[in-house]
Amino acid sequence: MDNSSTRWERLLGTSGIVRFVDINLRGIGQVMFQNNPLSGLLFLAAVCWGSYVAGVPRVAIAGVVAVVVATLTAQWLRADKESLSAGLYGYNAFLVGLALATFLAPGALLWGYVVLGAIVSVVCMLGVVNAVKPWGLSALTFPFVLATWLLLLATYGFAGLTGTALPTGQVVMPFQAYDTSHVNIVNVTQGVFHSISQVFLKQSVVAALLLLAGLLVSSWTAAAFAVGGAVVTVIVAHLLGAESGLITGGLLGFSPVLTAIALGTVFYRPSGRVVAYTLLGTVITVIAQAAMNVGLRPFALPALTAPFVLVSWLFLLPKQSFEPSAATRVDTEEPVHIRKPAA
Amino acid sequence: MDNSSTRWERLLGTSGIVRFVDINLRGIGQVMFQNNPLSGLLFLAAVCWGSYVAGVPRVAIAGVVAVVVATLTAQWLRADKESLSAGLYGYNAFLVGLALATFLAPGALLWGYVVLGAIVSVVCMLGVVNAVKPWGLSALTFPFVLATWLLLLATYGFAGLTGTALPTGQVVMPFQAYDTSHVNIVNVTQGVFHSISQVFLKQSVVAALLLLAGLLVSSWTAAAFAVGGAVVTVIVAHLLGAESGLITGGLLGFSPVLTAIALGTVFYRPSGRVVAYTLLGTVITVIAQAAMNVGLRPFALPALTAPFVLVSWLFLLPKQSFEPSAATRVDTEEPVHIRKPAA
Amino acid sequence: MDNSSTRWERLLGTSGIVRFVDINLRGIGQVMFQNNPLSGLLFLAAVCWGSYVAGVPRVAIAGVVAVVVATLTAQWLRADKESLSAGLYGYNAFLVGLALATFLAPGALLWGYVVLGAIVSVVCMLGVVNAVKPWGLSALTFPFVLATWLLLLATYGFAGLTGTALPTGQVVMPFQAYDTSHVNIVNVTQGVFHSISQVFLKQSVVAALLLLAGLLVSSWTAAAFAVGGAVVTVIVAHLLGAESGLITGGLLGFSPVLTAIALGTVFYRPSGRVVAYTLLGTVITVIAQAAMNVGLRPFALPALTAPFVLVSWLFLLPKQSFEPSAATRVDTEEPVHIRKPAA
Repeated sequence: MDNSSTRWERLLGTSGIVRFVDINLRGIGQVMFQNNPLSGLLFLAAVCWGSYVAGVPRVAIAGVVAVVVATLTAQWLRADKESLSAGLYGYNAFLVGLALATFLAPGALLWGYVVLGAIVSVVCMLGVVNAVKPWGLSALTFPFVLATWLLLLATYGFAGLTGTALPTGQVVMPFQAYDTSHVNIVNVTQGVFHSISQVFLKQSVVAALLLLAGLLVSSWTAAAFAVGGAVVTVIVAHLLGAESGLITGGLLGFSPVLTAIALGTVFYRPSGRVVAYTLLGTVITVIAQAAMNVGLRPFALPALTAPFVLVSWLFLLPKQSFEPSAATRVDTEEPVHIRKPAA
Repeated sequence: MDNSSTRWERLLGTSGIVRFVDINLRGIGQVMFQNNPLSGLLFLAAVCWGSYVAGVPRVAIAGVVAVVVATLTAQWLRADKESLSAGLYGYNAFLVGLALATFLAPGALLWGYVVLGAIVSVVCMLGVVNAVKPWGLSALTFPFVLATWLLLLATYGFAGLTGTALPTGQVVMPFQAYDTSHVNIVNVTQGVFHSISQVFLKQSVVAALLLLAGLLVSSWTAAAFAVGGAVVTVIVAHLLGAESGLITGGLLGFSPVLTAIALGTVFYRPSGRVVAYTLLGTVITVIAQAAMNVGLRPFALPALTAPFVLVSWLFLLPKQSFEPSAATRVDTEEPVHIRKPAA
Repeated sequence: MDNSSTRWERLLGTSGIVRFVDINLRGIGQVMFQNNPLSGLLFLAAVCWGSYVAGVPRVAIAGVVAVVVATLTAQWLRADKESLSAGLYGYNAFLVGLALATFLAPGALLWGYVVLGAIVSVVCMLGVVNAVKPWGLSALTFPFVLATWLLLLATYGFAGLTGTALPTGQVVMPFQAYDTSHVNIVNVTQGVFHSISQVFLKQSVVAALLLLAGLLVSSWTAAAFAVGGAVVTVIVAHLLGAESGLITGGLLGFSPVLTAIALGTVFYRPSGRVVAYTLLGTVITVIAQAAMNVGLRPFALPALTAPFVLVSWLFLLPKQSFEPSAATRVDTEEPVHIRKPAA
């Protein structure tokens, strides 16, 4: 692998096309905080597989179109070169593309919407990076959430775009279970893997394994915290009595998985106290996911990764210093929007 | 005109009453970013005409009462003199007055509410100016939106104040057209003009022409971008299949018109790249307007100019420098709440 | 009293247990801005009495458990020692404990939820303090509101936790009175006292008297502004035609009471202009309380003290200097999260 990555580096120097591909793959990799083109390639394989088995290949295509459009937009807007090379203007667009093609019916306008969403995600990224700079925070996936909520909500006012997988609008009502399946080793295991694959809006064990492979080639701690976040979700959600269909489908776990990776490996270095703090943040993200799933019902919108963003910001804002001897990453003077892999 | 404006300047120096009138007219002019008493006078004429033909003269009166109360409040609160003279503590109050008298039934409590709303709009303005200062942003019409939402929402809890033109509360539901009129030159033209007059909550072609005249006496680029924003709205909204009654009534266009003026002429100087960036922002404002119209249904509230504020802030936050050789307006050291006309 | 407080000070120096009790009592005192263990003790007595007569002693117990857990959490997170000693990591947790035990049905999971809520309230406090620092603002009770909303909203997605006193979800609808009782001296007096006791989620005149005693031992101006805020609420709410049951139950008054204490005695020193500004803020808080009660209906959530937080921040943001000769408290360089009693 060292060999192939050296060869890749050499190609980057000589070919503009390879450089462009590299940026877009890193963009896909940054969805899970990995500034690594091989991670991006494996994540893309996961999305392609998940889209193929679900019978919606357009979802993967929309993701690729969006990340390419975003990279071109970032170049047109003369975005910071270092962040651009690290894929930081691509990951939100990739998710916007996946989400729009997942939640809306296919058609010509959908593709116009995907392109527009990708362009806007870059403006959102540039804006959010500046908005949270005073607190030393990263933009995380908030640009994706903001752009996608706006675009999805607007479709309820347009005849040209129709939702296919959007929730039904209703006021908040007391808990009502619709799935009474018992807890067993099969659905617990599925819940863990689907929690990981749902980070990319997929419900597939194979996709989850490809995603874990993509994490492993870049950072084994990230892979470990991803699995840990998924396991914690399944346990906590069952303890609190969440709908078992949601747990098994991974729909309560994708945000906690991202929180676990972010708090445990990106913004703090793993240690006993950091693991405890990350565990707390992960548990709260499960609760926040349940809360936002419910709270967005009147708007007929999905929560996306908003619970991850909310809880991660909340747990980064205290600027906890778990390593008194050395500066933690969030306190450093380097541009906060540069997110490097932890390992 | 130069002659009359010189005479006006001379009067300002000698008469306290003329100075007070000047501040209030500039306050009305600032609704569309024009620090110009003649613009304010023409805007006021537009509102008076629009209120008269709609049979609600009290709306224009409420606007005038509010702007006067706001000016007095700003003096009591010892607000910054330069901003006060430029009418920056008046434009939000003028809109609050129009909105309260438009959406609520007449009565003694309405007038108390208008006075209270005008006072609070000044506190909101002082607060929002400080709130967005770290990012070099202007308050725009957010103080108006905040104060009006709060006051309108509270009426659902009071017997003394009743809505007459407020939307009906309902959860978000799939698109349902209620108006199937075909696109023709008449309703397209109406859509363009009404998009401009709805900035002041009026649906009137004559009012739109008076508003354009008010822009022209101060800045021809502002007038051009206002028309451009309205045209873009009508095209984009029809393409996406928005309700044609909303488009023709100008109810999707007032926010995009403001975004076009703000991005194209106030915060950036017109250039090829700025026009492209403003076009993008205007299109997104159309989508944001549709989204917020829908998203506020559970609260039975109108979106007001919130989409303009949201998108303009989003497009100003990246601090795009379209003129590398000179500092753009948002980067300058001058107090950000001083908004001067672009031309 | 001076004697006993000197003896208390001496005990603090010698006993770790007394110090721990002192921190927790001050935490309870800080709910109404009093850094005073005797105030905290009287506030606790009020809560115990109110819980006892309402037949829900678990509410008082939950408050005590929460404040103790929060103090331990703050120590684990190595929070600022001065703020810790002043009880600033306890008041939000105390309110979280009261709110969870008030709105949710009893059971083992409730107690887990109380402990979790107390821990999270400390993270929220640390985060919010940093979040509002750029504007020189205090966190007020926003950490309580944020943590409680998240935890309550999530219960609609869990079978294990059930609401007992939560509002029913519905879209916003025109005003409908359900209580037509006439205004008389009895219900006006009840409205005033209950507005004060509802700060601690209690509806009890005796509790209100104990709370006023707790304020008096620390600051007679705070007691005066508390009563003033309650009286203003009852008058304004009746004038605007609010539901008389809400007024008499104190449910429109607890936020205005806090706004009156905060603006009138904590962040500004009382003076003619400050009284006028505080009066305005208190009136707006009544309107904001009505607005948020209504606006949170689709989410089936109580407004808690959010109206107090919103309006107080809005009225502190302008950084009005009512004492040109001396720096006001919000402009001082001292850490903003240190809130000392005004008198």
